[in-house]
Amino acid sequence: MRHLLNPLDFSVEEIDRLLDLAADIEHNLPKYAHVCDGKKIATLFYEPSTRTRLSFESAMLSLGGSVLGFSSAASSSAAKGESVSDTIRMISCYADICAMRHPKEGAPLVASTHSSIPVINAGDGGHQHPTQTLTDLMTIRSLQGRLDNMTVGLCGDLKFGRTVHSLINALVRYPGIKFVLISPPELRVPEYIREDVLAANNIEFKEVGNLDEAMPELDILYMTRVQKERFFNEEDYIRLKDCYILDNAKMKLAKEKMFVLHPLPRVNEISVEVDDDPRAAYFRQVQYGVYVRMALIMTLLEVEKPC
Amino acid sequence: MRHLLNPLDFSVEEIDRLLDLAADIEHNLPKYAHVCDGKKIATLFYEPSTRTRLSFESAMLSLGGSVLGFSSAASSSAAKGESVSDTIRMISCYADICAMRHPKEGAPLVASTHSSIPVINAGDGGHQHPTQTLTDLMTIRSLQGRLDNMTVGLCGDLKFGRTVHSLINALVRYPGIKFVLISPPELRVPEYIREDVLAANNIEFKEVGNLDEAMPELDILYMTRVQKERFFNEEDYIRLKDCYILDNAKMKLAKEKMFVLHPLPRVNEISVEVDDDPRAAYFRQVQYGVYVRMALIMTLLEVEKPC
Amino acid sequence: MRHLLNPLDFSVEEIDRLLDLAADIEHNLPKYAHVCDGKKIATLFYEPSTRTRLSFESAMLSLGGSVLGFSSAASSSAAKGESVSDTIRMISCYADICAMRHPKEGAPLVASTHSSIPVINAGDGGHQHPTQTLTDLMTIRSLQGRLDNMTVGLCGDLKFGRTVHSLINALVRYPGIKFVLISPPELRVPEYIREDVLAANNIEFKEVGNLDEAMPELDILYMTRVQKERFFNEEDYIRLKDCYILDNAKMKLAKEKMFVLHPLPRVNEISVEVDDDPRAAYFRQVQYGVYVRMALIMTLLEVEKPC
Repeated sequence: MRHLLNPLDFSVEEIDRLLDLAADIEHNLPKYAHVCDGKKIATLFYEPSTRTRLSFESAMLSLGGSVLGFSSAASSSAAKGESVSDTIRMISCYADICAMRHPKEGAPLVASTHSSIPVINAGDGGHQHPTQTLTDLMTIRSLQGRLDNMTVGLCGDLKFGRTVHSLINALVRYPGIKFVLISPPELRVPEYIREDVLAANNIEFKEVGNLDEAMPELDILYMTRVQKERFFNEEDYIRLKDCYILDNAKMKLAKEKMFVLHPLPRVNEISVEVDDDPRAAYFRQVQYGVYVRMALIMTLLEVEKPC
Repeated sequence: MRHLLNPLDFSVEEIDRLLDLAADIEHNLPKYAHVCDGKKIATLFYEPSTRTRLSFESAMLSLGGSVLGFSSAASSSAAKGESVSDTIRMISCYADICAMRHPKEGAPLVASTHSSIPVINAGDGGHQHPTQTLTDLMTIRSLQGRLDNMTVGLCGDLKFGRTVHSLINALVRYPGIKFVLISPPELRVPEYIREDVLAANNIEFKEVGNLDEAMPELDILYMTRVQKERFFNEEDYIRLKDCYILDNAKMKLAKEKMFVLHPLPRVNEISVEVDDDPRAAYFRQVQYGVYVRMALIMTLLEVEKPC
Repeated sequence: MRHLLNPLDFSVEEIDRLLDLAADIEHNLPKYAHVCDGKKIATLFYEPSTRTRLSFESAMLSLGGSVLGFSSAASSSAAKGESVSDTIRMISCYADICAMRHPKEGAPLVASTHSSIPVINAGDGGHQHPTQTLTDLMTIRSLQGRLDNMTVGLCGDLKFGRTVHSLINALVRYPGIKFVLISPPELRVPEYIREDVLAANNIEFKEVGNLDEAMPELDILYMTRVQKERFFNEEDYIRLKDCYILDNAKMKLAKEKMFVLHPLPRVNEISVEVDDDPRAAYFRQVQYGVYVRMALIMTLLEVEKPC
């Protein structure tokens, strides 16, 4: 039995197979309408995340399965002091697979060691969020036709952004990837990413402070939120934030086949005027997230691909 | 693609067709058990409303479809500051149709302009609640066999009662409707209802302060809550409230074929002794609400009526 | 139409039939995958209880039915002041059967008198929790092969523990049951259990203060939590609590075919080292709880056993 706890749990070959399956699902959706008939997913959300929870639920329902679970710790028995390992043993009696979101790093890992059903980490604190990474990979591959030989810009809060770290870790496994890391100095990627991931793998990258300059060379622009609370003072925030807001003027500087991704929710870091640009891919990304989760559920449940 | 945002979005002919479908569903329920197989409704409740949410969920499940969503803003990502228009674009990737309840007037309208799935307004602040109105129309038509040529009493808080305003707006489109508006002076229908809806359409109506006097001529009595908070002072409330509490004594004054409706929940404005009167129709109204929502979901999804 | 409000609502013969059905479900699960197709259960949880709610939901889904409801009063219309009897009349229009958890004793009974669908009491305050008792009975019968002629130890808080009182009431109906009641003096079973249930039925029982001494003679050990708040002072708690914590050392004193049950969640009254002992049956108990609820739903809905 396998779990998905970390985006790197799958090898490059396994990710290829998963994304192939997800692409087949995208193009032949009705064929998959009953492959999980009678199966149940438990969505165990110890903190609310509507986007992720509903993506899993939509995925399972589209496979013919059903859903049970909770959407916040308040409405769960966590309040009664039960350990995650006891909870997962209970859930193993109720469902065939589960997706767990937890504010504490490592909780899904603990769960997996006591579980008799596959555990999917649906986000554990600032740590991992592997199905977001799979979603990002599928989006890039679907839009660009490949996962290698391209320049990927990552913009915004690169210090605390969990999705950014995971995506870097996932992409360095493909040949010919260059990164442009666009952030204010305070929010650069952490040292271990720069040294242990990028430098150690001889990955070409540069760190820049200005989105405008970076735009022309990018094939993918991955935007993230710059949260006001991350800055030392209000003045810095006001001075810097406009450099990291994507608008139509900045889009004019980009390639015709450059695509914009965002893990969502956005607040104001992408101007709504950009939504109508055909290169704005962040809502399509949500749809890819459902397909990739369908493929993941099938894979972990070892459900055969229908002919 | 159509939405339902306002009870008047449907023409009289369209409402006729919808109520015909709902009546066929009522009498041939098993025939409809699979017409929405594989379809998903998202119930987006930014404020709790168990009655309305479960009615939509029951309706979709009875059609063979499935359900996902949230039941309060607290357990949704609304807390993270996402706009309704971004949320609906996400939900469009997850479901085939949605029902939205929102404390802010106009939110479902905003959603509909960014949605790629039909949006049903399940109540937006004090504004509209069109499926309640459709429920009321179906109940009246089922019980009286028609929607025209009758005297409809509306009793209670006619000033703030959203369902009352919607029902008046819906009924003035049928010939021969007379209204008796029964309320304390403080809670009369607003000026624009009196002038722009009733007077402008030459509708016969009178405003009275006493339910007893009105009873004998009514074909339908639509009760609503009189909330204590609406009164200027405690004395007024105590003096007036008994005039607006329906009991068996008042029921004795009514026609044999007069029916009592209430949008529920009731608090004490209908005495429980009335529940056993065959003219008490407010619980049957709940059942009609499921049938009419089934018909609505089918209509907006353009699902064929089964033979 | 029948409800399940109290564990004693079913006769010994009826419980036998129910447990036979549950055992057949356990061993022929796929045969039951569609017996409740098109049926809906409403889970009405006026206070959160994830374990019980998800058990009912898993049970109904495994029978092919579907689920609607609410998981806490906050997200329900209870806040609007609706009575339980009005709510159940609404729910009767939405679902085919319901499970109600309520902080107020007697609420499910009130509901049942106004309901047109079967009501299952899923716990009402400190009063009753009949599906827990059915779960306990099924677990004991499955593990020991019988419900009669054995010695049952009940350990922990025997004063306030609702599940303990229900289990005693249920087991005294079988011949040859002996009880060993293991608790600190402050938490002995209430007088009415001792007099009206045990003594009145000539049941052999003893009350002891020490788990170690009791272990060797037990066939079943039913553990419950000893909550700190129940003690008069911290010193008493510290002095006493270790006597009531089950660990491997205590397990060494027990029979080879003695089984440990616990209604869960546990906090620390069973050491995690015991989990690997084959006699630790509290997680299997969770699974039996699903089977017995499946059997109960079928029984109350009068669904035929498939051939």
